[in-house]
Amino acid sequence: MIVQMNSEATEADLARVLAVIAAGGGRAQIAPDGGVIGVGGGNGALAAALGALPGVAGVSQTGSKYPLSSRAFQAETSLVQVGEVVIGGPAPVIMAGPCTVESEAQLLETAHAVRAAGAHLLRGGAFKPRTSPYAFQGLGEAGLRLLARARAETGLPVITEVMEPGLVGLVAEYADILQIGSRNMQNYPLLRAAGRSGRPVMVKRGLAATVEEWLLAAEYVLAEGNPQVILCERGIRGFDPAVRHTLDLAAVPLAKSLSHLPVIVDPSHGTGRRGLVRAMALAGLAAGADGLLIEVHVAPEAALCDGDQSILPAELREITSRAAALRALVAA
Amino acid sequence: MIVQMNSEATEADLARVLAVIAAGGGRAQIAPDGGVIGVGGGNGALAAALGALPGVAGVSQTGSKYPLSSRAFQAETSLVQVGEVVIGGPAPVIMAGPCTVESEAQLLETAHAVRAAGAHLLRGGAFKPRTSPYAFQGLGEAGLRLLARARAETGLPVITEVMEPGLVGLVAEYADILQIGSRNMQNYPLLRAAGRSGRPVMVKRGLAATVEEWLLAAEYVLAEGNPQVILCERGIRGFDPAVRHTLDLAAVPLAKSLSHLPVIVDPSHGTGRRGLVRAMALAGLAAGADGLLIEVHVAPEAALCDGDQSILPAELREITSRAAALRALVAA
Amino acid sequence: MIVQMNSEATEADLARVLAVIAAGGGRAQIAPDGGVIGVGGGNGALAAALGALPGVAGVSQTGSKYPLSSRAFQAETSLVQVGEVVIGGPAPVIMAGPCTVESEAQLLETAHAVRAAGAHLLRGGAFKPRTSPYAFQGLGEAGLRLLARARAETGLPVITEVMEPGLVGLVAEYADILQIGSRNMQNYPLLRAAGRSGRPVMVKRGLAATVEEWLLAAEYVLAEGNPQVILCERGIRGFDPAVRHTLDLAAVPLAKSLSHLPVIVDPSHGTGRRGLVRAMALAGLAAGADGLLIEVHVAPEAALCDGDQSILPAELREITSRAAALRALVAA
Amino acid sequence: MIVQMNSEATEADLARVLAVIAAGGGRAQIAPDGGVIGVGGGNGALAAALGALPGVAGVSQTGSKYPLSSRAFQAETSLVQVGEVVIGGPAPVIMAGPCTVESEAQLLETAHAVRAAGAHLLRGGAFKPRTSPYAFQGLGEAGLRLLARARAETGLPVITEVMEPGLVGLVAEYADILQIGSRNMQNYPLLRAAGRSGRPVMVKRGLAATVEEWLLAAEYVLAEGNPQVILCERGIRGFDPAVRHTLDLAAVPLAKSLSHLPVIVDPSHGTGRRGLVRAMALAGLAAGADGLLIEVHVAPEAALCDGDQSILPAELREITSRAAALRALVAA
Repeated sequence: MIVQMNSEATEADLARVLAVIAAGGGRAQIAPDGGVIGVGGGNGALAAALGALPGVAGVSQTGSKYPLSSRAFQAETSLVQVGEVVIGGPAPVIMAGPCTVESEAQLLETAHAVRAAGAHLLRGGAFKPRTSPYAFQGLGEAGLRLLARARAETGLPVITEVMEPGLVGLVAEYADILQIGSRNMQNYPLLRAAGRSGRPVMVKRGLAATVEEWLLAAEYVLAEGNPQVILCERGIRGFDPAVRHTLDLAAVPLAKSLSHLPVIVDPSHGTGRRGLVRAMALAGLAAGADGLLIEVHVAPEAALCDGDQSILPAELREITSRAAALRALVAA
Repeated sequence: MIVQMNSEATEADLARVLAVIAAGGGRAQIAPDGGVIGVGGGNGALAAALGALPGVAGVSQTGSKYPLSSRAFQAETSLVQVGEVVIGGPAPVIMAGPCTVESEAQLLETAHAVRAAGAHLLRGGAFKPRTSPYAFQGLGEAGLRLLARARAETGLPVITEVMEPGLVGLVAEYADILQIGSRNMQNYPLLRAAGRSGRPVMVKRGLAATVEEWLLAAEYVLAEGNPQVILCERGIRGFDPAVRHTLDLAAVPLAKSLSHLPVIVDPSHGTGRRGLVRAMALAGLAAGADGLLIEVHVAPEAALCDGDQSILPAELREITSRAAALRALVAA
Repeated sequence: MIVQMNSEATEADLARVLAVIAAGGGRAQIAPDGGVIGVGGGNGALAAALGALPGVAGVSQTGSKYPLSSRAFQAETSLVQVGEVVIGGPAPVIMAGPCTVESEAQLLETAHAVRAAGAHLLRGGAFKPRTSPYAFQGLGEAGLRLLARARAETGLPVITEVMEPGLVGLVAEYADILQIGSRNMQNYPLLRAAGRSGRPVMVKRGLAATVEEWLLAAEYVLAEGNPQVILCERGIRGFDPAVRHTLDLAAVPLAKSLSHLPVIVDPSHGTGRRGLVRAMALAGLAAGADGLLIEVHVAPEAALCDGDQSILPAELREITSRAAALRALVAA
Repeated sequence: MIVQMNSEATEADLARVLAVIAAGGGRAQIAPDGGVIGVGGGNGALAAALGALPGVAGVSQTGSKYPLSSRAFQAETSLVQVGEVVIGGPAPVIMAGPCTVESEAQLLETAHAVRAAGAHLLRGGAFKPRTSPYAFQGLGEAGLRLLARARAETGLPVITEVMEPGLVGLVAEYADILQIGSRNMQNYPLLRAAGRSGRPVMVKRGLAATVEEWLLAAEYVLAEGNPQVILCERGIRGFDPAVRHTLDLAAVPLAKSLSHLPVIVDPSHGTGRRGLVRAMALAGLAAGADGLLIEVHVAPEAALCDGDQSILPAELREITSRAAALRALVAA
């Protein structure tokens, strides 16, 4: 539930509200503007008790399933800052790089190329979730070190995936943003560990997750006290073998209407086909996305992973060169 | 299959090719530029026979499942003209109007409003496919007459749905474009009748149709000798109860890469929620759509049908005012 | 809505109820037991008016979306009789035969084989809905004549598909049961024509239809005054390319709990793979189906259509020999 | 790939084959019958090298994506034994119990009731994956201790879920079978940890997983050297709001044709509706399942979790009393 304090509420009123929430089995979090408290858990009796306290203007069940993620908790879109990059603000943010960190040469070449092509963050997988146990599983910590090196060389902050709770600490040492992959959207111990990492967390939507389930996954991170959460739509399971996934762009305005969290679109996994990436990247921005996550490879045909959906740096430039104007046009 | 004639081919060569196709059980159609013949049906023996004829530069199986719809048959996007409106050209085309023709007053008021808001065609249902036999089924021919009256008053050409082969003639008397609804995408007798109607035909994608099946439905119309076919993406069946359908925008660049037919996006049925229409309309254009089909009602809360997904004329204006700039930006 | 008459209601009471329904815009149908009236259409005012009439025990909105199909209208499963075969009774009914009537020899050989293997009806397509306009579309009326000949020779009643309203009369001359195919589940003019045909009608579930939409399609037939309706589950669209469709067997007990109509399972289209037909046929009966629809071909590898999913007569025998015992076991 | 040794192969031949596999980057596992080696990873060069070695009868790529799970590796269905219960043999195995361990009284009462109703194993969740962070998450280790107590009282072996790699050791101390839940089917660190646990592992199919992806998840467990793996079909994501999931029973014969692993069906999650459990349980066995996993609660309306899909012990008896005869009938 959402508790709205009135403008004359005192510190003592606030303290009393927090105490009642704790006693009633709820978990409280105060919105940035200080006048709204999100309460996870708790029941109707708690709501009634809170409504009767001094300083409380009202108690609402709107967005009550995911109080901390909901627009009712915070009317403005959250801003997540990494270095000088702000996600959720007026400028669209482009995260680009290879599916997988393959080697120093490949990563550095790609990192410089995506920076030159207008990207703001570098993506790349060091720990890779692979459908087959016999497929290349990533370079692990060596890959993380290469990402850090690429950041040092290019100035681009780094986003990379973490797959298990026990490695959150390690990945958080190197990464600027932790990515929770689609397969792990409902890996709750992992979400909780990411919530305690101190790093921003990007939660990719699961292949068969409703928007509500996706927001509830984000809520797991927020409920640990970490307000820096980003959502990423990357395609859901569909029936047409012509594409890898069905990119559900309506989820962008829907999630943004329900939640204050910024939303990123991944047209690479979202289609699985290089020839569709540009169109769906632009469509994603037109749908209101705060940014894009795009796989770029300097030689897609030689990629160890996802070559079919990786674009060239020159193709990335085609997207970044239109991004700001496109976002301005739809936002006007 | 696709037969490419060489540049020195004579009339006699062409006639011979057509005769061999007919004898081999194929159905031939000549592309507008005269040098390419699409052949429906026929087998490998026919392909070999054609390849050996004078004047034939080559025989290709590319796009052979839907030879007349394929880009291999015609490299340029088809232009479908109704009155002064050209669908498939550089300017995006906006078709707007009520779900259903309810009354003269409602239709005329809406028609004037959508014209003022920048629409190029008027949509409206006279014969309505309804999930329940007890729901309002449309005004029938009286509705068609009202549509004709609205056209006369506003100058907007009219698109309306036809549901059965026996009524194609009647609907074609009134409508500028025949619409084949989603439920009827694989109603082959209806597609054939529409193919013989002399009118442009817009084929909406079925709720569970792959892009290939959709192109094959269009092929039914083309195979009757009617080259004026438009595709319309309007959402596929998904699993999230938060939306009515899943608007599959990647189908737009995919269909356009495979086929020369223009593609329209329907964000109204595609989402079922008024609040998502604007974002998805703009996203559709950014994905490369040649136009939009949008439900508009002057009083959505009083609509007999689909009020939840109908927008107001003022909201339509928000879309049309950005459409040309958006298309120019992505096409540049 | 459903009107329950009380046991002392007179003929005059009944006549008054029917008149009030007609005046209130509803469509009435009397259940076989005479004490229940299904009302399609009509609003809350009509319900209130009916509830106040003499002879009326109660008016219920249960199953009100599809009053004539609902269990509230008729508690016992409907029996549909063709010749000596009863569908919906204790004995499971097996409908078997080729996908398509290809030739006299093929059909007669198959018909004798399926009869010998324990089938009760002969299936076979004369008018075939084909995804491609260039695929074989069936023998048409010549195919119907062959079906009639096969019936004469084997004594098996015939079920065959009809695809357009204008041909319902012709097909009804030859067929014992009209089949509405999956692609046409929401072809309302066709459903209405079938409802006026005087023949039993089997409505196959659409590829993306909910159970409610399926019952509403059946309701279109019932609302024309034709009580002889059978449902057929034949697989919905899924995401796994390993099978053609996803056979949704839970739809069987679900439909049977909501509706009195008998339900048939088609494991041939439902899986698209010969190797899965036996298991899913038996599973269908265990789920409570009243019968099966199975594609059988004497030489599946030479079939013009659906050879991959057609089983041999000997494999059919494997199913029919277990059917009665299986149904008895689950019904006990 | 699968390496078939010939009948005269010596120990030295076998040792040489294993050495070549290791040198070629493959992971070898020897099938129970000793004559077949499953090789995960490795490439075409390795296959060629192996094919040329003495003692090798052939090298096959059949089932090569999941060599250890495939029927090519082991023709007979694997038997997984826990206590005196054998899963994969002729007798169907019934696992039943509450969704969640709620209290000692509830668990013990239910355990006795399901044993009396014919169950062979006790299921119950101590660590619960919940869509919302504010929902009851299970009793944790206290729940495990209650499960152990229930086993001691009833003699029923226990199956329970484990959600994170770091807790596999703890859960394996108490449980007879570790369950990997649907949400974690592609949680690879968890699958690997389960593969090293020494306990049998049941891998539930993911909501949007193809059968191939499911077998590859099982392969992760097998590749750690744990041959005791069980598959569980529990419903995939569908579009009909009338059910919680779409139980995909065709996956049962499909998985069993591709793999030697036993397959269990969960009709409780598979439908989400108590009224459909019996029919789908019986249908699952008729489809060839080796057993069932069923939620039972002594007071479903008071259950903390999944009460809508829990059946009463008396309803379980309806299923168990038919299970053996049903399996015998379809297997005959």
